[in-house]
Amino acid sequence: MLFHVIMDVKIPRDLPADERADILAREKAYSQDLQRQGKWRHIWRMAGQYANVSIFDVRDNAELHDILSGLPLFPFMEIRVTPLLRHPSAIREDDT
Amino acid sequence: MLFHVIMDVKIPRDLPADERADILAREKAYSQDLQRQGKWRHIWRMAGQYANVSIFDVRDNAELHDILSGLPLFPFMEIRVTPLLRHPSAIREDDT
Amino acid sequence: MLFHVIMDVKIPRDLPADERADILAREKAYSQDLQRQGKWRHIWRMAGQYANVSIFDVRDNAELHDILSGLPLFPFMEIRVTPLLRHPSAIREDDT
Amino acid sequence: MLFHVIMDVKIPRDLPADERADILAREKAYSQDLQRQGKWRHIWRMAGQYANVSIFDVRDNAELHDILSGLPLFPFMEIRVTPLLRHPSAIREDDT
Amino acid sequence: MLFHVIMDVKIPRDLPADERADILAREKAYSQDLQRQGKWRHIWRMAGQYANVSIFDVRDNAELHDILSGLPLFPFMEIRVTPLLRHPSAIREDDT
Amino acid sequence: MLFHVIMDVKIPRDLPADERADILAREKAYSQDLQRQGKWRHIWRMAGQYANVSIFDVRDNAELHDILSGLPLFPFMEIRVTPLLRHPSAIREDDT
Amino acid sequence: MLFHVIMDVKIPRDLPADERADILAREKAYSQDLQRQGKWRHIWRMAGQYANVSIFDVRDNAELHDILSGLPLFPFMEIRVTPLLRHPSAIREDDT
Amino acid sequence: MLFHVIMDVKIPRDLPADERADILAREKAYSQDLQRQGKWRHIWRMAGQYANVSIFDVRDNAELHDILSGLPLFPFMEIRVTPLLRHPSAIREDDT
Amino acid sequence: MLFHVIMDVKIPRDLPADERADILAREKAYSQDLQRQGKWRHIWRMAGQYANVSIFDVRDNAELHDILSGLPLFPFMEIRVTPLLRHPSAIREDDT
Amino acid sequence: MLFHVIMDVKIPRDLPADERADILAREKAYSQDLQRQGKWRHIWRMAGQYANVSIFDVRDNAELHDILSGLPLFPFMEIRVTPLLRHPSAIREDDT
Repeated sequence: MLFHVIMDVKIPRDLPADERADILAREKAYSQDLQRQGKWRHIWRMAGQYANVSIFDVRDNAELHDILSGLPLFPFMEIRVTPLLRHPSAIREDDT
Repeated sequence: MLFHVIMDVKIPRDLPADERADILAREKAYSQDLQRQGKWRHIWRMAGQYANVSIFDVRDNAELHDILSGLPLFPFMEIRVTPLLRHPSAIREDDT
Repeated sequence: MLFHVIMDVKIPRDLPADERADILAREKAYSQDLQRQGKWRHIWRMAGQYANVSIFDVRDNAELHDILSGLPLFPFMEIRVTPLLRHPSAIREDDT
Repeated sequence: MLFHVIMDVKIPRDLPADERADILAREKAYSQDLQRQGKWRHIWRMAGQYANVSIFDVRDNAELHDILSGLPLFPFMEIRVTPLLRHPSAIREDDT
Repeated sequence: MLFHVIMDVKIPRDLPADERADILAREKAYSQDLQRQGKWRHIWRMAGQYANVSIFDVRDNAELHDILSGLPLFPFMEIRVTPLLRHPSAIREDDT
Repeated sequence: MLFHVIMDVKIPRDLPADERADILAREKAYSQDLQRQGKWRHIWRMAGQYANVSIFDVRDNAELHDILSGLPLFPFMEIRVTPLLRHPSAIREDDT
Repeated sequence: MLFHVIMDVKIPRDLPADERADILAREKAYSQDLQRQGKWRHIWRMAGQYANVSIFDVRDNAELHDILSGLPLFPFMEIRVTPLLRHPSAIREDDT
Repeated sequence: MLFHVIMDVKIPRDLPADERADILAREKAYSQDLQRQGKWRHIWRMAGQYANVSIFDVRDNAELHDILSGLPLFPFMEIRVTPLLRHPSAIREDDT
Repeated sequence: MLFHVIMDVKIPRDLPADERADILAREKAYSQDLQRQGKWRHIWRMAGQYANVSIFDVRDNAELHDILSGLPLFPFMEIRVTPLLRHPSAIREDDT
Repeated sequence: MLFHVIMDVKIPRDLPADERADILAREKAYSQDLQRQGKWRHIWRMAGQYANVSIFDVRDNAELHDILSGLPLFPFMEIRVTPLLRHPSAIREDDT
């Protein structure tokens, strides 16, 4: 089941540099692990923004929430979730 | 080059039924042709909305505009465009 | 899987009275049938508004969209969808 | 009498960890006590948000305000209240 | 129980003059009848607007909705409802 | 002359407790004194909000501003002012 | 007593040309008459907009509303009113 | 050439009292000097707000920016600028 | 003197085709004439929108308004105007 | 390929003066270097704002993002990006 998620990141200026670096490293590992599992299907950067657009493929709303609330950057993100489904004009097999 | 596009459709109630059917048929063919060419890379329906989220892969802004303004439903859509690029954490080869 | 849905209704003034009455009767039957099936779990009127708040319990996003886009009043509604999940403090068995 | 309430939680980053843990424990106990009394009828988590949707069943506006302003997390919440009533299409006995 | 209600009126230009006059006369009678009963406690015009601010004193949300949805101008109004209660600093006996 | 005023209060978390208590005590005395003079005609709490709706009866805009900017909580409030006048359907003598 | 008023004009396309011309002529006469009386103290066009910014000097809110609701263009305007008063730094005698 | 300017002031709470007093004194002198030169033609307080509406009469956009960015309170203001011109219905000689 | 102008075009569906074609032809000629005079310095299409971003170089606000309100498409446009000036980091001679 | 970019700058008050001066000097050099390369084609100040409007001419979205995210002021800016293309009425050779 697919979800469209926009994540806007605002890291507070007074976060210590090493704490920041640690969070960013864990965020990247966390994201790539989920991408390898096929649950975080796409991730793109929005030009000029510290923000991304992602497509998740999860079992249900609860799994989506577990993934998002487990993001190392979760406390510093504003997140918008939109449930998706196959479009009747889609031809690509895997956009479902 | 990738673009994120949201299309909200509002077809006026007084559009004659056959004109409406004709526009929708041409819209579908137009979309599927561009999907086959690889320029309209993804299209998903947003749950509960007469709207879609799409990813386009085009040569430049001008080609994107040509495609969008050529949509048979273009006069009845509100469109939002966001330029995308590869995310530094992406692992998928083709999300570029 | 639960979804929170707000439906704002704006029926155009020039809809013929019998067409309007027919749509409203079909809307009521449609809603009550889904309530009996357990898919439209709750529906409440918002005070002073021609609008409702509903909770749906469906298999997935696609089923939610089928139900919402099949509403007889769908062309005259503005709909907002929010995916829900069990709250960690919930004690009621069936709020899942 | 029913009310629809959305609570968005924003706990400040500099709240000491033990104070935070204490508030969250009291919040949970407070919520579950009111759920057991039948006054906090439903509570759901919104996917990807530190926020909930709740339905309250209270005597009047004053009781609703007493409950909400007594929440241990009240100083850290943005709250939106909508008065509800039975929908004419509802079939469930207890959605009143 | 008190509610704060803002009503913005937008009467369509093509409403026949006599239908308009009839609705406005019934609106006034309806409002004054409820004022006499003490249910529509206050009504003020907002300067420069075709809009009013009102205070209702009703038994519950359902009665408020019955009153508002029964307004002859209801189809031409945008309504915002806010539940009120006695303020801890109020000294006036009847602001409850 | 009547004015409708909404006051949203946001007291900063780092205000020392005694300073806060002092401001709140002075705010209450200030409000009640003006209520006794008949200038602060009504004050109601908005349910679930640290906010009030008030009706002021003052000589002119300047007196309204003097009263509002003199509120002990003024630095911590967001204020919205709407000028009111007698509604043509009002029956109550003192809603003028 | 001074008020700041912004008037946005949207004349419907299907208003007959002579009716439109008549309304505009009456609007101009109405405005200039009030300017001569000193009640409509200033009027400026906003560049690129069919809108104006005006300053009114009236006895009270009721007189302001009488003037605004009497505008021949009133049914085709969106109006925003802000009560003004003398600024403590003003040096001009007549900005009061 | 005339400009309509709204200035909303938000002075941070932790600005030392003497620094604050100094800025406010310089702001007043700066404003009155420009008023005497005829460049800051009008200034009014908005009731209930720490904000003003002003009319500037300057040579061009660059002079307007020099004046506004030179305000001692500039770092603590949110500013909105609207270019004005003579209204075709204006009768006052100096509203140009 | 430079101005940044965004023009959103919404041509009503019921405008007769020949009237529409005539307006568009006159709009193009009007724009190109002003471009040749150097007053309409730049015009760009916004991708996916029936809208443009333009830079005007005019004598004053009045001339800008004359140009904009004279656009054949003016009745069908929403226009936003922002006054510009030379940026202190600009190196290009003619961005003034 | 052209992009329209608005940059709103909000430098935090507690940034040390020398750090601020250093960032501003590097920002200016960075901008002028890109202007000389022809990639930052235009930059204008918005009157009364600590903000600019810019036109970039870059190879693709990725280059635009590299440039914007490399701005020394990037952490203190809110940025809005709009992809542009040649307008069909443009006569200037280089607005492409």
